This record gives sequence, structure tokens and C-alpha cells, in this order.
Amino acid sequence: MVCAEQAVGLVAPLSGVAEPTSHQVGLVLGRGADMALIVQKYGGTSVGDVERIQRVARRVATSLESGHQVIVVVSAIGGETDRLDALGRQMAVHPDAQEMDALLAAGEQISSALLAMGLMALGHRARSYLAHQIPMHTDAQHQCARIEKIETAPLMASVAAGVTPVVAGFQGLSEAGRITTLGRGGSDTTAVALAATVAADECQICTDVDGVYTADPRIVRNARRLARITFEEMLELASLGSKVLHPRSVEFAGKYNVPLRVLSTFKPGEGTLITMENELMEEPIVSGVAYARNEAKITMSGVPDVPGVASKIIGPVGRAQIEVDMIVQNTAADGLADFTFTVGRKDYDATLELLKPVCDSLSARALSGDNRIAKVSVVGVGMRSHAGVAARLFDAMAAENINIQMISTSEIKVSVVVDERYLELAVRSLHSAFGLGEPSAGEREGSPLA
Amino acid sequence: MVCAEQAVGLVAPLSGVAEPTSHQVGLVLGRGADMALIVQKYGGTSVGDVERIQRVARRVATSLESGHQVIVVVSAIGGETDRLDALGRQMAVHPDAQEMDALLAAGEQISSALLAMGLMALGHRARSYLAHQIPMHTDAQHQCARIEKIETAPLMASVAAGVTPVVAGFQGLSEAGRITTLGRGGSDTTAVALAATVAADECQICTDVDGVYTADPRIVRNARRLARITFEEMLELASLGSKVLHPRSVEFAGKYNVPLRVLSTFKPGEGTLITMENELMEEPIVSGVAYARNEAKITMSGVPDVPGVASKIIGPVGRAQIEVDMIVQNTAADGLADFTFTVGRKDYDATLELLKPVCDSLSARALSGDNRIAKVSVVGVGMRSHAGVAARLFDAMAAENINIQMISTSEIKVSVVVDERYLELAVRSLHSAFGLGEPSAGEREGSPLA
Repeated sequence: MVCAEQAVGLVAPLSGVAEPTSHQVGLVLGRGADMALIVQKYGGTSVGDVERIQRVARRVATSLESGHQVIVVVSAIGGETDRLDALGRQMAVHPDAQEMDALLAAGEQISSALLAMGLMALGHRARSYLAHQIPMHTDAQHQCARIEKIETAPLMASVAAGVTPVVAGFQGLSEAGRITTLGRGGSDTTAVALAATVAADECQICTDVDGVYTADPRIVRNARRLARITFEEMLELASLGSKVLHPRSVEFAGKYNVPLRVLSTFKPGEGTLITMENELMEEPIVSGVAYARNEAKITMSGVPDVPGVASKIIGPVGRAQIEVDMIVQNTAADGLADFTFTVGRKDYDATLELLKPVCDSLSARALSGDNRIAKVSVVGVGMRSHAGVAARLFDAMAAENINIQMISTSEIKVSVVVDERYLELAVRSLHSAFGLGEPSAGEREGSPLA
Repeated sequence: MVCAEQAVGLVAPLSGVAEPTSHQVGLVLGRGADMALIVQKYGGTSVGDVERIQRVARRVATSLESGHQVIVVVSAIGGETDRLDALGRQMAVHPDAQEMDALLAAGEQISSALLAMGLMALGHRARSYLAHQIPMHTDAQHQCARIEKIETAPLMASVAAGVTPVVAGFQGLSEAGRITTLGRGGSDTTAVALAATVAADECQICTDVDGVYTADPRIVRNARRLARITFEEMLELASLGSKVLHPRSVEFAGKYNVPLRVLSTFKPGEGTLITMENELMEEPIVSGVAYARNEAKITMSGVPDVPGVASKIIGPVGRAQIEVDMIVQNTAADGLADFTFTVGRKDYDATLELLKPVCDSLSARALSGDNRIAKVSVVGVGMRSHAGVAARLFDAMAAENINIQMISTSEIKVSVVVDERYLELAVRSLHSAFGLGEPSAGEREGSPLA
């Protein structure tokens, strides 16, 4: 929450990162054909209890026994961060950010120690690393700190000595020696930053889904797991509400060219490899259909079509920490414009309240809204070079008689807002219209490092 | 458990400790008559939940608002250390000591952050200090580390700047940069070591009892809270099972001449000041009557009275980490000896089992025992210069027709073992026999720093 704006902003320059090398899919470079350096990150659900931590330990052990070197990154035990956060918020209405960080970081301290014990119980040498022990240097933006520099010498010495490091994710150390935390998706960021800094062959994000799909399998029966997807597509999917990876870690991985693989912690499989665009043999026009529920739209109609109006409307919303997604403006013949934008549904009432005085001061005709909408998007790097994606999308919607309320496009994405009643129908018809149920000819599976 | 032996052993030399100054009871030196530097330690029960942490914050705030400078030391939230310990033991039969320390230290990390927040919520400036942030250097004896050196510059700079340090107790930092813990009574030790190093005017152990009593008030109705007690007496009481303070912290305080006060966290009062012997106006012969339940005695009778026998009996017991308390040996006329010692009742069966082969190999006559005994002791520095304490004790027991099974004496203590049925009666009769119900003339209350 606190650092939502920064999370989608630019990633701070990371010192000491190895020069990006051209990682080749399915082939491990530099350490012999059968030995790779892998960063494996396990989220809160994966380490949800003692039994699960033991299963994660066995999974890490399997990688080690295959001859790989592994650096593990863990989140807190599922629910622990929320428990600690609640304790802090009971102590003070506005708890101190520095103390909140010290409090929350205890969660990853606990899980990293437990997982190290679990590895040792299996006969492997291991040790936990807290941020101050690495150290993992960050700036002093508590609750949403940015990694600045990671000392890798102790970690790599540990790896070389056969002692598997189990790094507490999410936490960092400020120059003042205080504990910081990286904000939402923090452990993913820890893993990717570590992988970039040690030039790992792959960064594996082990989670409760077994990869990235062409559409939500709960909605589309013949949705397929994608063997590969580009960083840009993944970034669009993540920002569309796909919970697989936080946009920040994807952006980070793309920037530093870290081969990133999303795969299931407990289900065998190769997951989805997130790669550079030019590594794909053939670019499918559309890689997947994404959606976001719980959206709301707000329209201020009949506003004067003069410079500065948009800022007068969106300015107060942004200052209230409300995230605005799509923005559309049309100018009518009478010189007045209709201004529409979307926000999260939870912010709908607050936004309307906020804009009532703005509507009056602009002498706009009306302020209206609808909090029963959803966003459906098609994403694919291939659409850059292929015209007609939007047309095919509109055709598909028309064929199902679904009214399109708003349209927004980016280089690799077309999004439409529809009545939420039509969400599932829209996703299924688009999945079918773009032929996503059938594997495309050029797509191959990469060899996972497992 | 792990470091039970060391806990009662010698305290390691502590570097950088201020020269002991002659602290005068009830009068604060060096910082003006009304301003003192106090170390306040709060145990797990005191910070048992959010509401209690808030009450502790108010208590610290009261001291600050009285013009004192305070360094706070906290234990983990009551039950948290046990919860973490259990998690660790579920991960591995013999969990790694270094990882256990990283795991357990999270407890104090959480409580120190919460208490710092609580102080800030009351408008005071505060910050948490973890062992690595001070740093609090210890040796590398994980699970029972010894404090070697405390850097006080950052802490004292914080105090001088009006930012109250809230130190996570129980934890330390090894030279290798690993987190250590101090073992049982660890937070008391943290507090006393800190008080010694910063030359605090007083170290206040805030707990759930309001002081040290002449006897257990649950047994003796007219038991009195002692305004003062000597370190030696406190040490005897602590080792007799009185749960107020761990012997290690008392020993530490005595060694470095830290004025130590035991008082209630939530009940107003002056508690009990633990002082150097020569500060007492008049030494009462006996300060209090203590007892230990849950004892057991074991007798090997008819053992050859030759050198090395005692070691053959006690050796295996000690090596099995079983704590032996009293040891008595009598030699009979036939050149054979009876050897009796006491252990905790929980260790009774294991000890008997352990000694069966020893009994055989020594060709001793018999191995027997009794796990329904209790120990009753009178403690007082005054008995050094007064004969007849033992006699008066024996008289009191005889008057109640209580049979004495074993006797053991030290310079300031006489202990007897009796059938546990007579425990309460023995305590009451001794409390009365030594006139402990009436305040002695020379005893005065010291002014507490609250």
C-alpha cells in the first residue's frame, strides 16, 4: 500500500550487478552442462507450516542432489506478516515505519532459520542469512526500500563451501544500520536482485501455481500453460492483477536480464520461463487473456475542453493515494468533454466523494459512475507487428453481444471495460478468437533446472 | 537446559565495564539529585499482549516524565519463545544451535519493536535496538552465549538525544556475525550487563511479583516483602528455586556492583533492592525461608569407602546433564559408606536407571530413593557471625515432630530435606522461629527510582 506508486516506478540502479550475459534457454552456460547456479524463491504459502517447510527442504535437496548450486530465498510463513502487521497497528494508529520494518522482518528471520534446519535435517549443509549478515544494502525508504547493493562474497563463499544459503527475503539494511523492508512482492525482488548480482543461471519463483496460463483455467477450460513468455508480457499480466509475480520483480528481472521461471513448489513441471523477446522462435500475436475484477469507473461529463482540466480531476485522486488505471477522454461537438477513468472498486465511494467539489468548481454537467465493471485484456508482444488485434477483439465482443464501455491500448496490450456480468464470457470468447487453446507450432518447452 | 551447568558457573570477564562506584541506597549520584540513568527490564508476562505492552510503555513513560533516563530491555511476548522453540524442534530432532538462535531471537525483535512503537504512541521518542545494532558482542556458544563486550556509544548517544532505547534482550552477536542467545534468564543478564557497562544508577527487574519476601506469602500469611537483600542471599534464594531472578544475572550484578531492584511491573511499590552486604544498617541473622518442591533423593548404601567412589557415582549423572543439588556421605563403622544426593523429581527415574549398573560394578549393598521430598532453607548473611542458626532450625523442626532426612549448609544458608507432606508446616514454623514476621528495627525502605 504505502509504496504502491514506487513499486511500479523505475527500479533504482543496482551496484555490483554482473554484466548481462546472453542466457540461452534450456542450456546452462559457464558452469558445465549439468551444474547451474539457481536462485530459488519460496513464498508464504509454500512455507505455510512445518510440514510444508520440510517439503520445500526436500525440493531444494533434489536440486542440490542434481548437482546444482542453490541460493534459497524465503518469505515469511503464510499469515505471519499479517499477524505481525496487525500487532503493530494495534500498538499505534500510525506505527513508526522503522519499527514496523524491524517487526515485520522477524517473519522471514523465522522461516529462513526453519528452512535451514530442514535442509540440515536432510543431511545438507545450510545456513540462514539475514539482511544484515549479507549485507543486503537498501536505501532508507522504510516499508518500501530499494535494494542498492548486495555483498555477494560471503554468500558465494558459502555456496562454494557447499553450505546452501537460505536468505530471508523482503528485508534489507539501511546505511544507518536499521532493518528495512522492500514492500509488496519484496521476496520476489530479493530473489531477482540476488540472481542478478550473482549472475545466476536462473531465478526460480516457486509458488502455488504451476506457471503462466493463456487464461485463467478456472474460466477457460482449455487454457494452456505457456512454456515461455516475455518480460514485457509478464509485466502487463502482473499489472493486470495476475498475482503470480509482482511487477517490480518482473521489471527488475527484465532490466538485468535474469532468466526467471515461475513454477509450482509442490507439483512437478517446467513452469513458465520469462525470457527476452528475441529468444522466442516465433512470436504468437497474443500470448494470453487477462482480466481484472473489482474495478469501478467514474465519469465526469460536460467538462470544459481546455488545458489543465484533466489534471484538476486526476490530481486530487492521485494525492489521496488512489490508483487510477484507465483514463479516456472524448470531446463532443459542443466543446464540452466527457472524462472517464477507472479505479479499484474499494476506492469507488471515496473517489466520487472527492470529486463532487471538483465537479462543482469546473461547472461540469454531471458526475456518475459504475462499480460493476471488469477489465479484459489481450496481451502479446506479437501484436506490435500485426495489425488487426483490436479489430478481432471487437468482433469477438460483438459476436457475443457484449457492449464495450471503454477501450485502452498499449504497444502489447488491448484492454476493454465491460459489464462485470460478461467477464467470463468475454475471456472465453477472446481465448477462442485468438486460437489460444491450441499450441502454436513454434513454441517449445525449455529444459527446467530442477 | 542446554547451558544449565554454565549458567551457575563463573561469568566471563566483561570488557569495557565502568569501574564499580559506591552506589548509595536511595540516593542517586552523578546526575543530579532527581535524574538517574535506569535500566528497566520487562519479562515475557509483562509484555504478554498488546494491552500489556501499552501498559509497560506508560510505565516507562512515567519514569521518563520523572526526569530519568531509561534504557529498556524486553523479553519476548509471553509464550512466543516456546512457540518458536517448538517450531524448531518440529523441524529437526537435533536442531542446529545457530539456527535455533536466529529463530528464537525473532521473539525479542518483535517485542522490542512493539514497545518502541508504544512509547512513540505516547509522544516519546524511542527506537528498538537489536543485538547486531548495538552491537552486543558475545562468544560463539550458541544457545548459552556469554556477553563479552557491549558497545555503548550508540545507545548513550540515543539516550542523550532523548530517544529511549528499547533493547531486545536475550540476544547477542558472535564474532562471526551470527545471532546468539544467552540461555535461560537471558534478558535479565542483558539488563544487568547493560547496566554495568553504562554505569546505570539502578537496574530494575520489572516482573509479576512485587519483591522478594521472607517466605512464600501463599504459605506464610505474615510473610513480609524485604526492602533490601544482599546479592549473596539473592543468589542462594535464586538457586533454591525462587523464580524471581536467574542466578546468573544476580551473580553478574554482584560482580559488577550493579544496584538491582526487583519490582512489580503493574503494581506500584518499591520492590526489593539487592545491595552489597556492607550497605545494610543491620544484618538480620536470617533474611528469609525458601523451599524447593519437586525434589527427589537417591541413596546408594554400602559402597566401599575408598577414594574415587563419589566420582564414579556422580560422574555419570552429571554427564547425563542431570543437575545434582545436595550431596551427603556418611561412613559407617564397617568401612562402608552411604552416599545420598538429590536431583530434580523429573530426573528421578532416569537417575535410578543410570546408577543400577554403577551399583553393581561397585558391589554396593543397595540403591534406593524417595521422590516425595522437599527442601527447606533459611538464608541470611547474618548467620556468618551468629552461631546457633542450625540449632534453632533443628529445634523448630523437632517441635513440630518433622523428621530431617538430609542436612546441608553453606556460609549463609542451612538447608534440610523433609518429607514433602511437611513442607508448608516447616516453612511456617521456621518463619516464626526466626521472627521474620516482624520488621527488624534497622531495616528501612530505600527510595525507589520509579
